Formats: sequence, C-alpha cells, structure tokens
Amino acid sequence: MDLLSIKDPSFLKKMNNEELVELSVEVRKFLVEKLSVTGGHIGPNLGVVELTIALHKEFDSPNDKILWDVGHQSYVHKILTGRAGEFDTLKKYKGLCGFPKMIESPHDVWETGHSSTSLSAAMGMAAARDIKGESSFILPVIGDGALTGGMALEALNHIGDEKKDMIVILNDNEMSIAPNVGALHTILGRLRTAGKYNWAKDELELLLKKIPAVGGKLAATAERLKDSMKYLLVSGIFFEELGFTYLGPVDGHNYEELLENLRYAKKTKGPVLLHVITKKGKGYSPAELDTTGNWHGTGPYKIETGDFVKSPSKGPAWSALVSDTVSRLARDDERIVAITPAMPVGSKLVGFSQEFPERFYDVGIAEQHAATFAAGLATQKMKPFLAIYSTFLQRAYDQVVHDICRQNLNVFIGIDRAGLVGSDGETHQGVFDIAFLRHVPNMVLMMPKDENEGQHMVNTALNYNDGPIAMRFPRGNGWGVEMDAELQQIPIGSWEVLKEGTDAAILTFGTTIPMALEAAELLEKEDYSVKVVNARFIKPLDENMLSSLLGEKMPILTIEEAVLQGGFGSSVLEYAHDQGFYGAIIDRMGIPDYFIEHGSVDELLEEIGLTTETAIKKIKMITPKKEKRA
Amino acid sequence: MDLLSIKDPSFLKKMNNEELVELSVEVRKFLVEKLSVTGGHIGPNLGVVELTIALHKEFDSPNDKILWDVGHQSYVHKILTGRAGEFDTLKKYKGLCGFPKMIESPHDVWETGHSSTSLSAAMGMAAARDIKGESSFILPVIGDGALTGGMALEALNHIGDEKKDMIVILNDNEMSIAPNVGALHTILGRLRTAGKYNWAKDELELLLKKIPAVGGKLAATAERLKDSMKYLLVSGIFFEELGFTYLGPVDGHNYEELLENLRYAKKTKGPVLLHVITKKGKGYSPAELDTTGNWHGTGPYKIETGDFVKSPSKGPAWSALVSDTVSRLARDDERIVAITPAMPVGSKLVGFSQEFPERFYDVGIAEQHAATFAAGLATQKMKPFLAIYSTFLQRAYDQVVHDICRQNLNVFIGIDRAGLVGSDGETHQGVFDIAFLRHVPNMVLMMPKDENEGQHMVNTALNYNDGPIAMRFPRGNGWGVEMDAELQQIPIGSWEVLKEGTDAAILTFGTTIPMALEAAELLEKEDYSVKVVNARFIKPLDENMLSSLLGEKMPILTIEEAVLQGGFGSSVLEYAHDQGFYGAIIDRMGIPDYFIEHGSVDELLEEIGLTTETAIKKIKMITPKKEKRA
Repeated sequence: MDLLSIKDPSFLKKMNNEELVELSVEVRKFLVEKLSVTGGHIGPNLGVVELTIALHKEFDSPNDKILWDVGHQSYVHKILTGRAGEFDTLKKYKGLCGFPKMIESPHDVWETGHSSTSLSAAMGMAAARDIKGESSFILPVIGDGALTGGMALEALNHIGDEKKDMIVILNDNEMSIAPNVGALHTILGRLRTAGKYNWAKDELELLLKKIPAVGGKLAATAERLKDSMKYLLVSGIFFEELGFTYLGPVDGHNYEELLENLRYAKKTKGPVLLHVITKKGKGYSPAELDTTGNWHGTGPYKIETGDFVKSPSKGPAWSALVSDTVSRLARDDERIVAITPAMPVGSKLVGFSQEFPERFYDVGIAEQHAATFAAGLATQKMKPFLAIYSTFLQRAYDQVVHDICRQNLNVFIGIDRAGLVGSDGETHQGVFDIAFLRHVPNMVLMMPKDENEGQHMVNTALNYNDGPIAMRFPRGNGWGVEMDAELQQIPIGSWEVLKEGTDAAILTFGTTIPMALEAAELLEKEDYSVKVVNARFIKPLDENMLSSLLGEKMPILTIEEAVLQGGFGSSVLEYAHDQGFYGAIIDRMGIPDYFIEHGSVDELLEEIGLTTETAIKKIKMITPKKEKRA
Repeated sequence: MDLLSIKDPSFLKKMNNEELVELSVEVRKFLVEKLSVTGGHIGPNLGVVELTIALHKEFDSPNDKILWDVGHQSYVHKILTGRAGEFDTLKKYKGLCGFPKMIESPHDVWETGHSSTSLSAAMGMAAARDIKGESSFILPVIGDGALTGGMALEALNHIGDEKKDMIVILNDNEMSIAPNVGALHTILGRLRTAGKYNWAKDELELLLKKIPAVGGKLAATAERLKDSMKYLLVSGIFFEELGFTYLGPVDGHNYEELLENLRYAKKTKGPVLLHVITKKGKGYSPAELDTTGNWHGTGPYKIETGDFVKSPSKGPAWSALVSDTVSRLARDDERIVAITPAMPVGSKLVGFSQEFPERFYDVGIAEQHAATFAAGLATQKMKPFLAIYSTFLQRAYDQVVHDICRQNLNVFIGIDRAGLVGSDGETHQGVFDIAFLRHVPNMVLMMPKDENEGQHMVNTALNYNDGPIAMRFPRGNGWGVEMDAELQQIPIGSWEVLKEGTDAAILTFGTTIPMALEAAELLEKEDYSVKVVNARFIKPLDENMLSSLLGEKMPILTIEEAVLQGGFGSSVLEYAHDQGFYGAIIDRMGIPDYFIEHGSVDELLEEIGLTTETAIKKIKMITPKKEKRA
C-alpha cells in the first residue's frame, strides 16, 4: 500500500496477519530509504515495526493512549498516524520532529526525549481517566534500558501499588544505546531464557499431583510449596512482586503472538507488564548485525553497503578528545575512574573501558546514581570523571548540589553536548547547564576555546584538588588546531585576551569565540577596535580582568550559547553591580527564554539571532560614536 | 555508664549483651531528656539505638564505613563517637549538626540530609576500596521509605549487578515520615509476615525428597521445580532477584539476633541486604505510640506528658494555609488533584486526603515521579497541585524542565519551606529554587507577602490556564493578618507598591518585606524617602513598574531570601541592561555563594547580613547625597 496515503491507523482494523506482514516490509523499506538520506534513529524504529502496527491495530488511538518512552522509536507510529509524507524533513528545521510532538498529531499524547518518563505520565493519565470515570487503555512503551532510570522505578512502585488498569509494554531489545547493565538486565535475561521452556500449565499440575498429601508439621510447608508454584508458572516474579501481572516474553516480530497477548492484556484487570522481545535494526542487516550501538542513531548512509556518509570534519570529536585525554592521564594516575550513565559509545569511553576495565563504570540510564556514585568515590580520594551530556545532567541537579558540591568533593564532570545540539531538538539542547550550575557553591565551570585548550582543561580538572570542577564542551568536532604535546594546567579563573582592542570588549567562550573574532575583524574595517576575551572560566570569573575592563569603562558584550537568564552574562552584570560599577555598559547575547526546536545548529543560531551580524550591531550600539572616539 | 565519657566506640567490644541492653536504656534516657529541650528527630533515633550500638560493636568504624541515609537517625552514632557532650547545642547555631558531618568526626564518612543517597555513595566507596586493594566493610543504613527513592533503586540495580561486598542495612520501621506507600512497601510487609513462619531448611529438604523421581517429558519440569525451592527458602525474592543475598527479617531491638546476623553478613560474599525491623520511638511511649508522624521530628516537649511546647505563632502555618485553600477550591473544581512525595503531614495535606481520597496521591519519596505524574494528569486537563519542599524540588529539576515546562502544562507547584529553614541546616535550606526555576521557559514563579495574599495566589494558580505556575512560601507561620473572605485573583506579573517613596526603591517579596518596610521607616527619620515594592512575581517581572522605576533613575535595592547568583536581583539587572538602562543603580541583597549551615533563621540572616541594617546601609550608599536631593 501507499504509506503516503495513510491518514490515521483505522485501516489496520481490517487487515489480516498476512497483510500486516506485507505492511511491515513496506514500512521497513520506507524507513531504510528515507533515513539513508536524512539520518535518524533507524535501529530502534526497525525494531518496533510489528509492535507499533499491532498496538495501533488492537487499540484505538488517541482515545487509547500510547506513550513512547524516550520517543526516538516513534517513527512507525508517525507513519501510521498520517505523517509519512513529512519524512523528507525528519529532524530538519521546521520539519518533522524526531520525537513525539503534540502539535504534530493528536496521536502524540506525551512528548519525550529524555528517558524513563512514560510510566509516571501514564500513571497520571490513568488517574485522570478514573477520576473522570472515562474509559481508555493507557499504553506506555518503555525499553529495557529506560526501565532502570530511577523515575521509572519510582513509577513502577507507585503503579504496582495503586493497581490502576494500565498495560506497560516492555520493549526488550537487550540493549538501549549501549549494551545494558544492571541487575534488572540480568533478570530480563533470565526471563528471555525461561520463555523458551514454554511451560505448559498442565504439566505442572500433573507434577503437583505427584506430591503426596502430608499432614502434621509438614502440612503448612506443603501448602506453601504449592503456593510457590506460581513462581514456576509466572517467571516474571520480579514484576509480580511489584504488583504487576507479567505477560511474556513475546516475540515482538510475530503478529500472532503480539496480538494474542495484547488482547489478553486488555482483559486483565490492574497493571500488566507485557514483555516483548524485539531486535534492534530488524530487517536491515547492517543495523541488525550491529553490536556497537553505531546504528542506534545515524547520519545518512549508503543503503547497499551500510557505509555511513561521513561529513568532513577538521578536528577530533570533542567526546573523543576529552575521553582520550582522561585515558592518557589515567595511565599515570590510578585514582582516575570514568563513569558514564549508559553512554559509553556517545561519550567515546570504549577505549577507556578496554584499557582500564576495573576503573570504568557504565551504570546504565541512572544519572542520579552516577553523580552520587562519583561523589562516593571522591570521598575515598579517587578522581572520578563523570561523562554526561548537558541535557541529562539536568537529572542529577540535586546530586550535584547536595552530594558533590555541598561536600566539596573532587569530581570532574565532563559536560558533553553543551550548547545547541541541532536535530535532536528541544529535549536535548544543552543550554541550561550554566544557569543551573553557576549558582551552586564550590562549583568551578569552564569551557575551552578549542581542542588544544580542551586537553589542557581536562588536565587542569584532574589535577584540581579543591572541589568539583566541570568542563562543558560542544557536540561535534574540534576545529583541527595544532595540539601541544605536553599537557598544561590553566590557572583557575583565568581568562585570556585573544585580540586586543580599545573601544569595546566581547567576553565569550567555547563555540561562540569564532563569531566574536569575526565580528571584531569586520568591525576593525569600520574603525572599531574590539577586544575579544576568551572567558574560559564561567565560574569563577576572572575578576582582575573584568575589574580592569570595567574600570576602563569599556563597553562589554557577552556572548554565550546558553540561556540568557541566569547565565554567564548575568554573572558579569552581577559582578559589575556588586563592585559598584553602576555606569557599566553591558549587553548580552545568548539563548532567549523559550525552548529551541530542532534544526541545524546554524539555522537555530540564525533564528535566535546568535550571529556575527547581531554581535556587530550590538557592539556598534554600545560603543560611543566614532567621532567621539576619534 | 557516663555517656559523656565516651571518646570512640571501641569500649563496646568488651560489652556483653546484658551490658548493651543497659547502655541502650541510658542512651534512650539521654535522648529523651536532651531532645525535650532542643527538639530533634526523636522518633527515628529511639528506633535505631540497638542497631547503631550493634553496628559499632561488630564493625570497626571509621575503617568500616557506616553511611546514614537521610542522616537524621545518626544521634546514637554521634553519642558513640564522642559527641554526647554537644547535645545541648543540637541543631543550634554553631552547634551539633542534626545530620552526619565530616568536620565533626572521622566516623561521619558521608554527609546526608536528602534521602536515598547512601547506596550510591556506598557503591563508590566499595569501588574505591577494591581498586585500591583495601579491606573494609561498607554499611549503608537505609530506611524503607528512602529505599523507594529512584536513585536508591538505580543504585540497587547497579550494586546487585557489580556484586561488590557490601552490607545494606534496611531499617524497616514501617513508616518513614508518613506511613509508607508503594509496591515495595507491600513486599516488605509480606517479608515481615513470612519471617514468622521460620522455615527450617530441613523440613523443606524432607518434603522435596517425597517428590518421586520422574523421567521423560516431566524431568526438566521436576528439575525446575526443585530449583524453585529457593523461592521458599529465600523469602526476599525481590532482593535476591536484584542480586543481593537477603537476610532477615531481624528484630532490630534484639542484640542476639542483630549481632548474629551482622556476623553472618560479614562472612557473606557479594552484596547483602539485611532486613532489620525497628520501631520508631521505641522506649518512649508518646513517640512509640505515635501513628501520625508527629514524633518524627519535634520541637521541645514535656517528657512526662509528651505535650509539645508550642511556640506562640500569630498566623496559620503556611503549609496549612496553602493546603486548606487548595481543599476549598477542590470542593468546586473536580479537576484539582493533590500530590505529595511522602510529606502528607509536613505539607498539611491530611485534611485534603480525607476529604478527597480519590484525588489525593502520596507517591512516597519519589520527587521525580511526583512531578511527571503531575504532568501526566495535566495532559488530561486535570489541575494537579504538587506540594513539595523547595530543597526536595531540586530532585525534580529535570522533570520540571523537560516534562512540565517544555510541554507547558498546567501544574501548580507549591514550593514549601522556601528560603532559610533554620535548624535543619545546609542540606535543607530552600535557597536555590529561584535560581533553578527562573531560567526555565514558561514558568511563572511567585511569592506572597502574607497569608492573605497567599490564599489569593493559590486561587490565582489554580485558575491559571497558560502553563506551569509555582508559589514559594516559607517554613513556619503567617503573620496573623486579616483574611479576605472571598478569594481573588492576582494579575500575573503584577507587583504592588507597599510604600511610596522618591529617593530609592526596595524590590522584595515574601519574608523579607518586613525588613524592607522597617528599613524604609527608619530611613524616613533620616529624611530618605524609600519606596517599597512587593515584587510578588519573581517571573515574569512587572516590566511596567520596573521600567518606570528605571526611567525615573530610581536607585534600586533588591532583597531576596535566596541565592544571589542567578536570583531575582539578577533578573532585575538583566532587565535593566536589556532595556538599555545602563546607568541604573541596582544593588542586591540575598544569600551569598556558600552553603548556609544550621541555626535559627534570625542568626543565619544576621550571619549573612540579610538584615534591616544592611538594607539601610545599602540604600544610603546607592542614594544620592541628601544635600543633592534637597
């Protein structure tokens, strides 16, 4: 059938299993083709083709509510709900979002991006349904990786207790982004194996009958033994203990099994956990055979070969630069331990993990635990390096405040993907970290101008002994600058003048430095002499340099790829006023007060006016007129 | 024995059980007496007298590491480690901290205050121990309530997988602060009951032998049946599934049982969970018989009667004012749902829970889930009221950003205990909320000047339909102002002039308004005319009023009981500069950049200079000289 003609999932009701299988083939072909051009989360979506089709066949969305945890596996759902025609714009500026989005469709009932939220939201929807006396099925679809996130476990604990009708679909693909870790993973592994036994209930009944009747002291024991038979019949004891009816495991690529179990779940009162086994990348061999996580989310690729279309980059990937420098230092310093919450591939820690297996910890999707685990290590004089994306560090805010900073422990936080991340959009932009970290006492926060300074900052951080220190660095690659052979240390709180100037000063750091330098150069031609400062320490500020600038009554423009409210520029304002420089002319550029959607970073910077042109305009506005200056 | 003479716990080694029992009596007497004067967490500490003594007898602190989760139950530990003499200063300014504190003693190896952190920290300590090849026992002591916190569950998942030697003491008192909720609580309840069966292993072996040998098709089934016997022997299947060796349940007030099990745990490889049943308030009947949670933490009380020594208060408790107003509105609005993460008593939601049981949810210690559960409700057009302490809201920061604000959902967050909280100290000060909320898009944040405005703000919040809205309010009681009978709505973003003035303006809100008014009055006598503005909306600002003030070149002083960095004053600076009011004279008062310890709120305000005197001094500094003004 023509996928582009789909308006809503109602057409599925009439389809038989054979037709569903044909549809699956078409959906896979469509995904593999479209994503080869746009890139996207190909692996997860190929894995849930049958599951998504079965859900939409058996249930009535949007009255029945399907919640996609994390949400990068919602492409099939998007196709079935009338959005196939928009896949050429997937993850592009103003195009189809890579995650569920309420404004796109009434079938998107819950927006995601961060993991492990679907169960809590589903509980909210179930409570609302019951208060209102309405009738609907609530169907959160959560991966085995996301299930270990603390908030998902909190939700399981609540749902199992409240006993509300809900069907939790556990999409178990044996890996989320990286191979899964944790005891729950072991439990799921046992369940997958147990499933193969295909215990027939009657066999067990037969066996039970062979146990002779006993009396006296043993009677209670015998009774209890019979009770315990449920542990045999019900392999999902872990979930049963939590108050769920466990169903499964079910082959997630078999319509008969899927539909039969969904129908059974529909009739079951209270919370059900349906354990569905799927294969990431199913049906497209390069993705299906992948064990590295490289096919979780990709850029464009060649369909025939599965080769990735590499975009040319000058420097090393930032994540690799940071992790490799940590590895280099770890060779001489046995106190260094690396920790990642489920991002060994994204954070490029595979090398470290192979070289120092006993000092490497992938704790799974568990940002809170990761941060406090690091704090625990630091109390024992170890040097933990916590590799974490800016947007996911949000989830460990309290642990950073209460455990790391309050105890002033030597934890080095490598804040990856800081700033705009582009196509993953508003749930993933790393734009809040400065605002939520700089007000925390004891925190040192820095960002390097290039990968060479980056390696020195890593060295600085791992040699710093006075408390927590964090380095933010962007998504993508460095500029390709020359690298010093010897690692150096950068004095804490020291800025660096990149270009001298006398009329105004731009204070900026990281990715926006080229913009500042370009603006200064262009302004030079119009006879403005603009100083450019690498304000590489966001906290503490270089108070000497800032005092000098303020003392000279130099107009100041701050630029940051982060939210303006409470950000770096705000701290410059605070300093100026605290020191009584009341006449100071300070203007700020940064991310405005709304959530920034998906698109290329350049398009987004353009949209919010974080550009060379704005910098030039602002410098002209705050700088006294040329005649006067002359 | 004289508790004051204790220097360290080594004296316990020589004591027999009888002597330990005597010691317990003395410790209880000491606690009941001392805390009757100072107040403190009497219930939890009376519950762990034997457990603490047994731990210190059997292990060698501080080489063996005892981690007190939450930490308010560490008083006995403090007595045994040489701090009995300091109990007269408990929770007082510069006195003994109510929580573990590294600077007090080398036996305090991990500082707490927020719950559920001990397992992650213990995992860090165990990893460090093993990397360094050292030898020590790691002993996190965690309550059944704290165990449901997401980060504790994340840690269980990690610890159970890594199999490091560790003895988790589960201190199960069947309630943390409020009666516990959640499926895990049910599991623990079953374990407590199961414990009474006292299964003898030999009885089961006997029974197993009675199952005849079977061959053929049934052989595998029979084998599996025998495997399943472990489910009978091991009642703690939930924890066993997670990779722990479960021991217990053990009577936490019986030295013989306690010591025997601790010794057994010592010899067990890998992670052990020792389930200890204790009774909160044990040995002091008013606390022991308490079922309301009122004896969890108290002020002074009369020992004989158990009557609390009430300090006189003018107005209603803030928590009660807010919750009662929510109840009042819920009578006419069936969409209103109240949610508390384990604080029904503290948040004074017991009345609401009784009046609207179907619209009340205590989700346990699970702040992340609570916030996203509220978001889920809001997607279904309900009106969730999330009652949460400022300091605990830190743990739901990502959920506020990603789930509530990003989706712009109508969630009303009642931020209790905002500002300095006093005797609970640095882990509990509610001073970061403005800095971590005001940069989040879509958020409305307000604070009332008194309880009358407070009730109108609650009404405003629950009638607001444009997204998330939060009201912060302090610990303690209102001023006793007259209450309007009719509830009103306050225009979003509107400030209020409390006192006119022409020389300077103080912008402030909430608890610091009296300080501002007093300063203005005193300044009046020195011929300074100071305007005082109730800046009740922290976000959005009243831009009209602020523009006027700035346009009039009025010097401005902002005062807030919250961190200065990125706070309200900072947003005033941002606005002034964004609007080009470069010459604006703006000075700020608030909480400086370090963690504020325990003491009375007045003492703390004095310490940090958040006083009328400072306000007067600052107004004089920023206001043009009298001669000039005249």
